[in-house]
Amino acid sequence: MLDRVRVVLVNTSHPGNIGGAARAMKNMGLTQLVLVDPERYPDPNAVARASGADDVLEQAHVVATLEEAIADCVLVMGTSARDRRIPWPVVDPREAAEKVMDQLGDDDSAQIALVFGREDSGLTSDELQRCQFHVHIPSNPEFSSLNLAAAVQVVAYELRMLSLQRQGQPTKMHKLETTNRQNEIPATAQELERYYEHLQQVLVEIGFLDPEKPRQLMPRLRRLYGRVRINQVEMNILRGILTETQKAIGVQATGERRR
Amino acid sequence: MLDRVRVVLVNTSHPGNIGGAARAMKNMGLTQLVLVDPERYPDPNAVARASGADDVLEQAHVVATLEEAIADCVLVMGTSARDRRIPWPVVDPREAAEKVMDQLGDDDSAQIALVFGREDSGLTSDELQRCQFHVHIPSNPEFSSLNLAAAVQVVAYELRMLSLQRQGQPTKMHKLETTNRQNEIPATAQELERYYEHLQQVLVEIGFLDPEKPRQLMPRLRRLYGRVRINQVEMNILRGILTETQKAIGVQATGERRR
Repeated sequence: MLDRVRVVLVNTSHPGNIGGAARAMKNMGLTQLVLVDPERYPDPNAVARASGADDVLEQAHVVATLEEAIADCVLVMGTSARDRRIPWPVVDPREAAEKVMDQLGDDDSAQIALVFGREDSGLTSDELQRCQFHVHIPSNPEFSSLNLAAAVQVVAYELRMLSLQRQGQPTKMHKLETTNRQNEIPATAQELERYYEHLQQVLVEIGFLDPEKPRQLMPRLRRLYGRVRINQVEMNILRGILTETQKAIGVQATGERRR
Repeated sequence: MLDRVRVVLVNTSHPGNIGGAARAMKNMGLTQLVLVDPERYPDPNAVARASGADDVLEQAHVVATLEEAIADCVLVMGTSARDRRIPWPVVDPREAAEKVMDQLGDDDSAQIALVFGREDSGLTSDELQRCQFHVHIPSNPEFSSLNLAAAVQVVAYELRMLSLQRQGQPTKMHKLETTNRQNEIPATAQELERYYEHLQQVLVEIGFLDPEKPRQLMPRLRRLYGRVRINQVEMNILRGILTETQKAIGVQATGERRR
């Protein structure tokens, strides 16, 4: 669906920012880039900063006016850093993503534009009035102007987050899936109990725990290990450490203890 | 609270990215930057890309090792683009922000580090193992590596969003507050009805609406205007247009109609 969302950059001064925007777009799964009257384009700096998002740059449309860039769009959102006299519906990037995804879902052919202004002066009042919504990134009021590619990154990130969520896809890698299944299986209560028994035994053997004056040592250790949800692999490691400790201090580990 | 969150950049190759990261930080209200063994720093490219976040650069600490950079931190989060063999708790940037804000809230003196790796190869396995959590930005699996400053921007943005929300502050500008109150006051049902009467009259006068065959014209117009929640100022404009239309076609507006 995100292929129906275009990023429109108006009168960009620095070609490096065009490249940075293209990279941010591709990182977030956006592909449609429209450049309205860029100052310098094509330019090797755009390619350098795109860092491999060359396909987004190559497919970019260069047009003369914002009007052309958004002509077929049913939803146009313009980013705005400054407070303006004309009141207008303002959304933050998260709300903007909701409006975009809602529109894409409601209308199978909807084309949508996210419009970003000039590095130094943003969008003009006339340009902002062509947008149904103004997107404001909640920046530090004393230092509010984001780099152009950074602004594209934030809005595209919110779109991707919501798009993944609505598709029921995870927003993060599932590292566990790629690894040994034993890393995923938590230790059972019984295994934990056997570990605590073994641990207590070793603490006595090394002279750290006095059975006559146990204080709160074992409860504290239980609390610690209980918090971390030990898995099978970790359990084996911890038991192994205890056994090796016993060997090192010359205690014969019994079958009972190592059960 | 965000002054207790430091951004740690490890072995950064391009000083421009250090500047870009500093700008993104200041935009989002972060100030503490720590550079672990940067390749070229200080450097004029860092200052250029910081675009006014010079104070963040000037206060940046340069240290030799990651260990030094995070020594006093109770929570260390490292960004990771790649899937790794060692399973580790992975969070997306939104969850990372929650963990950071929770920790800041629970512990008044907590220092927290957000660690970002090298442009080409990220953080090493050893470095990632010094982090309690790995932050993964949900990027396009086929083009997953964000620009360093863009990654800082995304994580800092999530922190600022959550920080504003928890403080009960708006995440967007309130443009309406700065403008004429009349723009905020919606038109009443009665005012709308008078407008529809006036509109219908004018549509008849200009010959667009045939009272004998009204079709669905007025219901359609009511639906349209009903959707947009017209305010007082807009109402006055719309009524003014009707009156001027009547003048232009030579109809004397009556007191009744303009009530």
